[in-house]
Amino acid sequence: MSDPAPADLLRSLRDALGDRHVLTDPDLVAPYLVEQRGLYTGRAPAILRPGSTQEVASVVALCAAAGMPVVAQGGNTGLTGGGVPEGAVVISLERLGAVREVDPVGATITVGAGAILAQVQDAADQAGMLFPLTYASRGSARIGGGIATNAGGLNVLAYGNARDLVLGLEVVLPDGRIWDGLKALRKDNAGYDLKQLFIGSEGTLGIVTAAVLRLFPKPRSWGVAFVGLPSARAALDLFVHLRDRADRDLTAFEYMPPFALDLALRHGKGAVRPLAGEHGAYALVELSSCRPGSDARLDLETVLGEALETGLIEDATIAAGAGQAEALWGLREAVPEAQTREGGSIKHDVSVPLASLPDFLERANAACLAAMPGLRPCGFGHFGDGNIHFNLSQPLGMDRAAFLSHWSRFNRIVHDIVHEFGGSIAAEHGVGLIKRDELIRYTSPVALDLMRRIKTALDPHGLLNPGKVIRPPE
Amino acid sequence: MSDPAPADLLRSLRDALGDRHVLTDPDLVAPYLVEQRGLYTGRAPAILRPGSTQEVASVVALCAAAGMPVVAQGGNTGLTGGGVPEGAVVISLERLGAVREVDPVGATITVGAGAILAQVQDAADQAGMLFPLTYASRGSARIGGGIATNAGGLNVLAYGNARDLVLGLEVVLPDGRIWDGLKALRKDNAGYDLKQLFIGSEGTLGIVTAAVLRLFPKPRSWGVAFVGLPSARAALDLFVHLRDRADRDLTAFEYMPPFALDLALRHGKGAVRPLAGEHGAYALVELSSCRPGSDARLDLETVLGEALETGLIEDATIAAGAGQAEALWGLREAVPEAQTREGGSIKHDVSVPLASLPDFLERANAACLAAMPGLRPCGFGHFGDGNIHFNLSQPLGMDRAAFLSHWSRFNRIVHDIVHEFGGSIAAEHGVGLIKRDELIRYTSPVALDLMRRIKTALDPHGLLNPGKVIRPPE
Repeated sequence: MSDPAPADLLRSLRDALGDRHVLTDPDLVAPYLVEQRGLYTGRAPAILRPGSTQEVASVVALCAAAGMPVVAQGGNTGLTGGGVPEGAVVISLERLGAVREVDPVGATITVGAGAILAQVQDAADQAGMLFPLTYASRGSARIGGGIATNAGGLNVLAYGNARDLVLGLEVVLPDGRIWDGLKALRKDNAGYDLKQLFIGSEGTLGIVTAAVLRLFPKPRSWGVAFVGLPSARAALDLFVHLRDRADRDLTAFEYMPPFALDLALRHGKGAVRPLAGEHGAYALVELSSCRPGSDARLDLETVLGEALETGLIEDATIAAGAGQAEALWGLREAVPEAQTREGGSIKHDVSVPLASLPDFLERANAACLAAMPGLRPCGFGHFGDGNIHFNLSQPLGMDRAAFLSHWSRFNRIVHDIVHEFGGSIAAEHGVGLIKRDELIRYTSPVALDLMRRIKTALDPHGLLNPGKVIRPPE
Repeated sequence: MSDPAPADLLRSLRDALGDRHVLTDPDLVAPYLVEQRGLYTGRAPAILRPGSTQEVASVVALCAAAGMPVVAQGGNTGLTGGGVPEGAVVISLERLGAVREVDPVGATITVGAGAILAQVQDAADQAGMLFPLTYASRGSARIGGGIATNAGGLNVLAYGNARDLVLGLEVVLPDGRIWDGLKALRKDNAGYDLKQLFIGSEGTLGIVTAAVLRLFPKPRSWGVAFVGLPSARAALDLFVHLRDRADRDLTAFEYMPPFALDLALRHGKGAVRPLAGEHGAYALVELSSCRPGSDARLDLETVLGEALETGLIEDATIAAGAGQAEALWGLREAVPEAQTREGGSIKHDVSVPLASLPDFLERANAACLAAMPGLRPCGFGHFGDGNIHFNLSQPLGMDRAAFLSHWSRFNRIVHDIVHEFGGSIAAEHGVGLIKRDELIRYTSPVALDLMRRIKTALDPHGLLNPGKVIRPPE
């Protein structure tokens, strides 16, 4: 910790929140300074824990008056360093954790930004509804962070990204004013759609304090399968086949190259090989339906049966029940941690137009292998969204740190190919610190100018999460 | 027509587009000055018909340099006066009508802003896909206008508003620069989501010249029913029942009070009473499914059978085939024109949270009747979206003009109630001219300030569609 806050400001902040909620003790402050990959360690003169929207507004106003920058933090589970303070005060939203209201008729839920994702899901579930946003950190990620980063995850195919699930927002602006946009409407064209500005802008334009979110009918049947295919191209053909026949019942289509399955089997707890033989590519597929009397498992059997007959797939196992379904999902979900256990990895969270996914994987795999023989590319993930976590595991026996020193070099190789395909170098995790310079490289001057104009219009003094997403012009 | 353009500017515009595409002849200009309800007649020194994005950029740059404001126009089918020029040059996008590309694997279509909605639908259909955006003016409305107004229509329940269907945009900015955001990605968090700024901002921040839009699998079966219910409250119960059981197969839930059905039967061509008896409320319901072997008609029979047994509905007729389905849809679609034939009508395009729809209808009906006995309220439309076209037909025998002179008074009554329910006074048609002052009345100072900051950041000289949506501060 460094950059102590001016004594006057600290005193005002303590007056506003009470001493207990202004942390300056280094031990208490420490957890708010690091992000989970350990790539960054920040510094902050204080951690503020306001207990209400009004308190958030008050402390933001105090900081603004003192010229003190602020960084909003939810569960601090981000993967890009977007919540790491670089001398700014941290405003933790953790005490704004209430589920304010569940409306099963309107199919909405109103929550404080600090509500933990799993708690939002549970509250919806208890009301007989589904809140579909979900990802690995659901037990500690807070919904405000998911909204601020427009998080994706495992259910995007049928239900969309966080942006698609937000109906209304309450936001504290950089000068401490509160914008109350907590509407629960499916249609609203009364002026500019202000909430869109704050979703996905990573706390650089405003601090989300509450949201109205969409709920959906709860599925009544599921089918989960693990499929063996000859190639990524076959996976694309299978995806199109399934989308055409299952449409919005197709709730997941996750891709794993053979190396990803190897990793999951090697490091995953109790992981069992799902198919007898080995294949060039694998897909985890889920259908679900809320229709009474539906049998998504049978539907899946039918469409995969067709795919087997026409030679589109080589083999498939369909989960007989919830336990087996969980085990198959477990293989896919084991990959990120398994890759960490396998040594150093250089990560990319990219998307390309769906039709070019197989070409992208081929090109990117070849280019990375050419740049470092022995490297083990592991492009896996949300295939149906065109979103691949194109991670590179270090060559066996290489020094971890030596490998990681090539991070920028591989970024360049992979992102250049993504760019060539008209893709995105920041598909679902956001930009934060880690991709801020890459963003500038791959974004047109016109787009950068528009982003800077927006930033300047809403946060003219650059007080909110400074240095993240978009750098000021040099 | 008035306000002649400076001769220098006209000469440059003619040089840029050719004489044929700079219209100043009053007869040729006239159609671009009126909107279809005849509420406004504009004035414009010239109509420009650029033939490419580059030409749009060139003429915008020329106008910007001359300080000449511009209004973009698509099919000029808007209902709010948003495309009416008030002394500005009109830039018609009609020559940018090409369907540039259909990608059935990626499930996207790339179109020029001037493409007619029906042509976009047809191009998707020919590729075996569905482009779901649809509304009454589909034969002449152009897609750029639908995007600029975030149009809704008949398929929002399952597929969303125009905003939800846009993956990428190409936009000419107020200074004539082109922002190329024509990405075809389902996930992209690389910086601020700039396209959201232009969708629904009615040409006040930029001129949409092309878009990448989402396509969906084409339904393989349909079921359409006309349902008689005791009340709007019962309609809400039925909607929740259907949503729970059909989920995303529920593709339409349209509401008609008895007076709306009367109007359709009185004025609709060949309209036939769909149910033997009379009921307190009516709903037109559609299920559809792309699953091979699905039978949405049978599904609809099942869920409506349950609703009949539990007394949720009083009667229903299910279309036996496409012809009958069209006839039922025809009753709903006949309402707007039938209401015009019935005399003067004062219109409101509003939305409220779904659960409060019955209360809203009751309150608004009573308040309007109290204000003018004999008035015939006709709140009908997209019930499932919480969106009601709350239109008021004049009392029988009253003078049309005398009735219409009460427009503002009824706006106040209806919009006050909408506001009380946390609703929107501009649900799907936008703000334009007709609701500009109403918007200011019902929008918080914080929200207005944000909107003005955005307008100023993107269009500092106020050259794009001046006076629409958001007025400059006084």
